[in-house]
Amino acid sequence: MISIKVIGIGPGGADQVTQAAVTALNKVDVFLVADKGGRKRDLVAARQEICDRWITGDHRFVEVPDPVRGPDAERDAAAYGQGVADWHRARTERYRAIIEADPRLTYGFLVWGDPAFYDSTLRIVDALAVELPITCDVIPGISAIQLLAARHRVPLNRVGQPFLITTGRRLLEDFRAGLDVVVMLDGHLACRELTGRDLEICWGAYLGDAREVLVRGPLDEVIAELITTRADLRQLHGWVMDTYLLRPLSATPTHSSRSPSTSR
Amino acid sequence: MISIKVIGIGPGGADQVTQAAVTALNKVDVFLVADKGGRKRDLVAARQEICDRWITGDHRFVEVPDPVRGPDAERDAAAYGQGVADWHRARTERYRAIIEADPRLTYGFLVWGDPAFYDSTLRIVDALAVELPITCDVIPGISAIQLLAARHRVPLNRVGQPFLITTGRRLLEDFRAGLDVVVMLDGHLACRELTGRDLEICWGAYLGDAREVLVRGPLDEVIAELITTRADLRQLHGWVMDTYLLRPLSATPTHSSRSPSTSR
Repeated sequence: MISIKVIGIGPGGADQVTQAAVTALNKVDVFLVADKGGRKRDLVAARQEICDRWITGDHRFVEVPDPVRGPDAERDAAAYGQGVADWHRARTERYRAIIEADPRLTYGFLVWGDPAFYDSTLRIVDALAVELPITCDVIPGISAIQLLAARHRVPLNRVGQPFLITTGRRLLEDFRAGLDVVVMLDGHLACRELTGRDLEICWGAYLGDAREVLVRGPLDEVIAELITTRADLRQLHGWVMDTYLLRPLSATPTHSSRSPSTSR
Repeated sequence: MISIKVIGIGPGGADQVTQAAVTALNKVDVFLVADKGGRKRDLVAARQEICDRWITGDHRFVEVPDPVRGPDAERDAAAYGQGVADWHRARTERYRAIIEADPRLTYGFLVWGDPAFYDSTLRIVDALAVELPITCDVIPGISAIQLLAARHRVPLNRVGQPFLITTGRRLLEDFRAGLDVVVMLDGHLACRELTGRDLEICWGAYLGDAREVLVRGPLDEVIAELITTRADLRQLHGWVMDTYLLRPLSATPTHSSRSPSTSR
């Protein structure tokens, strides 16, 4: 059997790694790392830093050039699903070629955050398992949405209430008055269309690393500045990863400050 | 300023603790631990085990008897909310008395899983902060729902799709066809009312410890046995903590097995 470990390494920052992840990292011979090219190369460097800090023995990084994906924003839902499926297939083929070359080794995938939330690695491993004899361990990691909640010192839910986790693409479709929503993968701050509804936003970018920025306040009051801040950060660092919680302003206890705040 | 650390320690099992949590654990002088009495005392013991494993210096546990709460199941939503509020107030008073006695120390709350998901500790700290000068750090932990996903080797979302996180109390009200739902705090397996809808369930109990049990399969096929299994486990161990994912059966790739499975 070929052994694969899918390891959640948290949102950034070597100290968000669990003890179970450290144990798993030390059992991997070869890490398969998607190289997305260009400015995202510092994500590869950040992974290497985490490995260097926690792995005591030998290990090897194999950078696998990521297939090119067209722009998602212009696609409808069906084309989007097909685009993702094609992209997964192309990635799977590349990984399979590497694994088949030496099936006695233990292979590791390092996943930002947690493989449970909007990550495709487990689908790729499922696809590999159709053709190869694979055993797979999954080690959960801290997701950016958990660090978002921790930094803002809020639970993601109100007492006894549900909350929805969705993407920027789906936000306007999924939003309902009174429902708390956590938004991931939103490159365009789709929440800008949800002003005038007495919502509060708790936003965070680069959570867990030195660049971390937090913004909180009534959506109507902070959205204009947030759009500017996000664009500036993207310009400055070459990329931005961010996430946010939207909830009714009335969810914030009256003794807390409801005025806008930014911290860096 | 009085320093409080709210530390997510994961769902059980000392290896689910992050490096950041270990650092925070070592800065705490006094851990405030709710003693729920009776058979739940082994939860206090499990917390002590985690501290003994990772803390190198001195620390002290103060067990705070938990105020008695009436049965939730018989209450309507308003009475439930009031009951929770009264209970929080009573707990807050007890913690405040202890903290005020020596405000120079650093106090820690150990939270099962992650303070971001259905946990009241941050609300209690907010209430304490109304009357005391407090600085609070929150350290996220792995939630049971993440270990559930890891053990079943599934992401919680389908590609590009939203999912709802809710409680057993709210499940029937919140459920909509086609929406993937993660259910926490369900003492009665409310999903038993959702048969006949072509759903799959991925269920787990005692996630992360030696008693761990997983069940997966079409809801209609496994629910009867699951109800029995859960009752037996509760009888055997005195308590049960469990969580599950419900999603359309069609979400499971055809090459995966859709037949029921139980693993211990």
